[in-house]
Amino acid sequence: MKAVRFIRTGRPAEIVDIPRPTPGPGQVVLKIAGAGVCHSDLHILDEDLGLKGPFVLGHENAGWIQALGQGVEGWKEGDPVAVYGPWGCGRCRTCQSSAENYCDNHASLGTMGGGLGADGGMAEYMLVPSARQLVALGGLDPVRAAPLSDAALTPYHAIKQALPLLTPEATVVVIGIGGLGHMAVQLLKALTPATLIAADNDPAKLDHARQLGASHALDTRDGDAAAEAIGKIAGPRGATVVLDFVGAQATVDLGARVVGRNSRLTVVGLGGGVVHYAANRPPYGCQVTVPYWGSRTELMEVISLAQDGHIRTEVETFPLEQALDVYRRLREGKIRGRAVLLP
Amino acid sequence: MKAVRFIRTGRPAEIVDIPRPTPGPGQVVLKIAGAGVCHSDLHILDEDLGLKGPFVLGHENAGWIQALGQGVEGWKEGDPVAVYGPWGCGRCRTCQSSAENYCDNHASLGTMGGGLGADGGMAEYMLVPSARQLVALGGLDPVRAAPLSDAALTPYHAIKQALPLLTPEATVVVIGIGGLGHMAVQLLKALTPATLIAADNDPAKLDHARQLGASHALDTRDGDAAAEAIGKIAGPRGATVVLDFVGAQATVDLGARVVGRNSRLTVVGLGGGVVHYAANRPPYGCQVTVPYWGSRTELMEVISLAQDGHIRTEVETFPLEQALDVYRRLREGKIRGRAVLLP
Amino acid sequence: MKAVRFIRTGRPAEIVDIPRPTPGPGQVVLKIAGAGVCHSDLHILDEDLGLKGPFVLGHENAGWIQALGQGVEGWKEGDPVAVYGPWGCGRCRTCQSSAENYCDNHASLGTMGGGLGADGGMAEYMLVPSARQLVALGGLDPVRAAPLSDAALTPYHAIKQALPLLTPEATVVVIGIGGLGHMAVQLLKALTPATLIAADNDPAKLDHARQLGASHALDTRDGDAAAEAIGKIAGPRGATVVLDFVGAQATVDLGARVVGRNSRLTVVGLGGGVVHYAANRPPYGCQVTVPYWGSRTELMEVISLAQDGHIRTEVETFPLEQALDVYRRLREGKIRGRAVLLP
Amino acid sequence: MKAVRFIRTGRPAEIVDIPRPTPGPGQVVLKIAGAGVCHSDLHILDEDLGLKGPFVLGHENAGWIQALGQGVEGWKEGDPVAVYGPWGCGRCRTCQSSAENYCDNHASLGTMGGGLGADGGMAEYMLVPSARQLVALGGLDPVRAAPLSDAALTPYHAIKQALPLLTPEATVVVIGIGGLGHMAVQLLKALTPATLIAADNDPAKLDHARQLGASHALDTRDGDAAAEAIGKIAGPRGATVVLDFVGAQATVDLGARVVGRNSRLTVVGLGGGVVHYAANRPPYGCQVTVPYWGSRTELMEVISLAQDGHIRTEVETFPLEQALDVYRRLREGKIRGRAVLLP
Repeated sequence: MKAVRFIRTGRPAEIVDIPRPTPGPGQVVLKIAGAGVCHSDLHILDEDLGLKGPFVLGHENAGWIQALGQGVEGWKEGDPVAVYGPWGCGRCRTCQSSAENYCDNHASLGTMGGGLGADGGMAEYMLVPSARQLVALGGLDPVRAAPLSDAALTPYHAIKQALPLLTPEATVVVIGIGGLGHMAVQLLKALTPATLIAADNDPAKLDHARQLGASHALDTRDGDAAAEAIGKIAGPRGATVVLDFVGAQATVDLGARVVGRNSRLTVVGLGGGVVHYAANRPPYGCQVTVPYWGSRTELMEVISLAQDGHIRTEVETFPLEQALDVYRRLREGKIRGRAVLLP
Repeated sequence: MKAVRFIRTGRPAEIVDIPRPTPGPGQVVLKIAGAGVCHSDLHILDEDLGLKGPFVLGHENAGWIQALGQGVEGWKEGDPVAVYGPWGCGRCRTCQSSAENYCDNHASLGTMGGGLGADGGMAEYMLVPSARQLVALGGLDPVRAAPLSDAALTPYHAIKQALPLLTPEATVVVIGIGGLGHMAVQLLKALTPATLIAADNDPAKLDHARQLGASHALDTRDGDAAAEAIGKIAGPRGATVVLDFVGAQATVDLGARVVGRNSRLTVVGLGGGVVHYAANRPPYGCQVTVPYWGSRTELMEVISLAQDGHIRTEVETFPLEQALDVYRRLREGKIRGRAVLLP
Repeated sequence: MKAVRFIRTGRPAEIVDIPRPTPGPGQVVLKIAGAGVCHSDLHILDEDLGLKGPFVLGHENAGWIQALGQGVEGWKEGDPVAVYGPWGCGRCRTCQSSAENYCDNHASLGTMGGGLGADGGMAEYMLVPSARQLVALGGLDPVRAAPLSDAALTPYHAIKQALPLLTPEATVVVIGIGGLGHMAVQLLKALTPATLIAADNDPAKLDHARQLGASHALDTRDGDAAAEAIGKIAGPRGATVVLDFVGAQATVDLGARVVGRNSRLTVVGLGGGVVHYAANRPPYGCQVTVPYWGSRTELMEVISLAQDGHIRTEVETFPLEQALDVYRRLREGKIRGRAVLLP
Repeated sequence: MKAVRFIRTGRPAEIVDIPRPTPGPGQVVLKIAGAGVCHSDLHILDEDLGLKGPFVLGHENAGWIQALGQGVEGWKEGDPVAVYGPWGCGRCRTCQSSAENYCDNHASLGTMGGGLGADGGMAEYMLVPSARQLVALGGLDPVRAAPLSDAALTPYHAIKQALPLLTPEATVVVIGIGGLGHMAVQLLKALTPATLIAADNDPAKLDHARQLGASHALDTRDGDAAAEAIGKIAGPRGATVVLDFVGAQATVDLGARVVGRNSRLTVVGLGGGVVHYAANRPPYGCQVTVPYWGSRTELMEVISLAQDGHIRTEVETFPLEQALDVYRRLREGKIRGRAVLLP
């Protein structure tokens, strides 16, 4: 079958012909409907993250069950499913509570998941090591569903941890209205009545945020003006939750400046920024966190939100063969919404 | 191998010779070290609970891994383990979050677990349908560990849900200091600084509660006096949490009488009592619940408590062959602590 | 000043002329803008609830600050405010955490609040015993705001406790789409993405629920059909949360029948129904509760929801002088939305 | 009356004679039993924290009610009480939920509390601006109780936020076994069964930690060895909670190194260290926070723990007249336990 493979750091991905996988006991093979193309793939291709190639890329995957390994129960061929991406040991207390994204034994696993050390979904077929990593899609289109497993799950996880703070009088700031941020705006609208401030340095993205229902949309090119405007909206309490999907030093600093006491500053974007936390800077009682992906049950919840029409991914599809071109366009910032490869 | 089997309602258990199980893909066979003998077995033998025999009894099991089915990873032969008892579908959101005791699909499974519709642990060997139902024992003696999987897990689950209420100035009442109740006293001592009132109609059990560290031990034979004493200790706020391990009408009524507003009344014992809840009786804001067993991660936490010496099961051991005699003694109230059968 | 007074059980309310209150130290006198007319007033007039008259009726109040007692800081004359209704001791841990509705010392206070033992808001002026019981209204119309302090706060409190269960794939059933129920529908839409089923025995109210955004609206006149329909929507998991704003035996029974395991059955309506809870009926792990009103901070959150347009009370206004006629119409079920008296 | 006053930054405290306060409406005057001498007083004396003198020092206070202002109910002269220290506006949602330590309006109040901008407790009498800031002591000795209001409340607040993580198999590391740290060890023993590792660079303090029940006591003078030892105890999951009561760069770095994913790093000590948080350093999902003091209800809980003997302050008492000498000894590290001034 055709597949897009990572070979080693610094070398472009390759489109190759490899044997179709067959499922061992407890495993499942999917026929891939779509594989999302994520910015982190560029990190994998460019930087040494400790992942050992070759492996098939693609960690946002959905498709139909093609073959069930021995002992797999409750699923049948043809079932449309999304793949839960961060594969843990499955046995530790953390994995048992569904949060494989924080598996206790991750350091000794040798892989972070399909497309992240193990073979992923940029291929006609994909091997999923355990049926526990499948989530049923029901009537949801698997092509549109593929990006949900990361581009929606990651902000959902970040937001879910902040939900107890997002009471009606609270203010939440979303910085960066791109792939994850525009999902965050939709998720927040569905999940909380808090006042929602979108912030970006691109007026087109601010327009997008307004269309998605943000109460306020602020241009961050003038950081001081943005901070002042947030302060005016949030009042003396300050922003209750800041979700930074850029993570550059400028956005991290903006977040630390506007977040209130007893609040939450969450940095999701890997833009190289660092939060420097000492007494009362960010303010006392602020929770600072850099979360990673989400849990299995959170993916179930995300799929449910999409099934009920609360969230909607914008998808641009490409044939698998154009993968290298898509990576080039992603690098140049020329993809609108999420690119999904169709094998 | 020798096994104690349930045949059908109203018929005594039988000791029979049956073939040793072999593990299919994803499954595990244990060599049983000990199988706890629980009061619910008497219900199974006597009443029609919808369970279809024959099956091997015993739902509190621990032992050593004897054989691993294909595809099972992370375990090896000889590992000492406890068996998580309530077996769910494993796929629903509830099971995925480890709470198989509340599996969404329980009604269509045909079994509630090993010894509860499927073959249990009163035998030399036991088949566990999925490795996810194993919890590692480390250095813990499997014979003493067997009862933890029910007699400690059940009160632990009930207590864990109440923990946010059990702040230092709170009062918790444990009614019934038998098999589960005496574990509850130990668990509460380990988990909370709340004032602990033990209540029972048997002075010997009250002595036991005192030895285990209960702040107060009250005789319930005079219900009015007990209620008054609790009211005096708890003050105008009333009892914050009541855990009833008897569940008879008298104990349920006592609980409803002493529990405060914005509090929690938990009935674990299946003594046939009914809580009648209408406006302000039990008081407004009281949470009334009848929980069932516990989750996989809660069993991990219970095992950890036992490993660190926070809780200790009192165990009386018997050879498997004496099972019928043990059931008789249990029926007559002649077992002190937990009876464990050794194959 | 003119006021509507409760004299004693079984006697109609009276419109009388009484002296205008003056604020003592720490107290505040309001000029009343509107006082909501609540069904519970009929209970007060008809049944012996232990409240000792005479006192001015009206426990849903909003207006403007008329006079500040000595030592009151942070407020000024003319500020528009809602009155937090359930007045506790203010000193116990429960009151200190803002939940005066569950004040530890309620039994010894001699009053449940203004209009409930102490003088309430059906008058030109009202004495509020502590400034802590005021919530600022900002730009909100005090007449429309008055009913928020009970008709919105009570369902909000019930819903807020259930929020952790109301994940996207959850199902919530609201029984009774009257004064509180139609607020509950709006609140649930603002606060959760869960599937919302409205149930009532009045087709007009079901229409109302549909307009407010309920996903499903079911007629409860055929209880079996309603239960079956809920079961079909909720699937094998059952309803995750049931909120019963009627509380008659039929609705309570319906709730207990459709609610799932590990779920929540909340009875708010005081229709005389009783939940009979024994093992697995309602299902294991179900939390049954009869909450009372809400906390001070919850009223702040409700006011914020109204300010942001998430919820909207339907109000029919009457001059204070027509109070007796309004009670009559309320008794006959002839009030649509909430009646508010204007002094 | 005699009082110890802060005049201005850089000038030593002065013992002066000032008029006895009288309570206005809603206020209370205490006869001071004891006022704790806290390290932060040295910061106040030495550094410009924006506090404007003169004011009486002392923010850890307990005593007996001497006089009640008009309108204060529920208290009487002679009642022994502790004073809740961080005084907020009392009206914002945060203060209303008892967390005045994070008052939304703190920036505009001009004072952080008694002894922190307003007159504190190093005097014969002290004015408390609102009765809501009193906590009843019951039978507790006010002299021993004084330090609870800070030296125990501050670690209690930090621990309480971490409690949901402190399940039985968790590991908690306490760095710095001084005034706050030795209370933290006692609090953790009372509140959780987690494995408790104490860490300090002073062998005498490690001995103290062992006496108080720490499972492990590690010398931090060799930071690598300490980190390795913690890693060995905590296993691949890493430390679940780290509480740093030193807050120097070395201890903050140690905490960031040993804390696990999905864990919590809390820096309480103001030793000038900075947590630098970027992707996965501290590990993904780690919550980093620098809390401040605690809430009113948390002080109630702390008092309750002391009443029940779960925690015990070590107190060295001095006459008020020796205040300057006590500050000198504190500066030289010559105070064991907490110094308390007796007027």
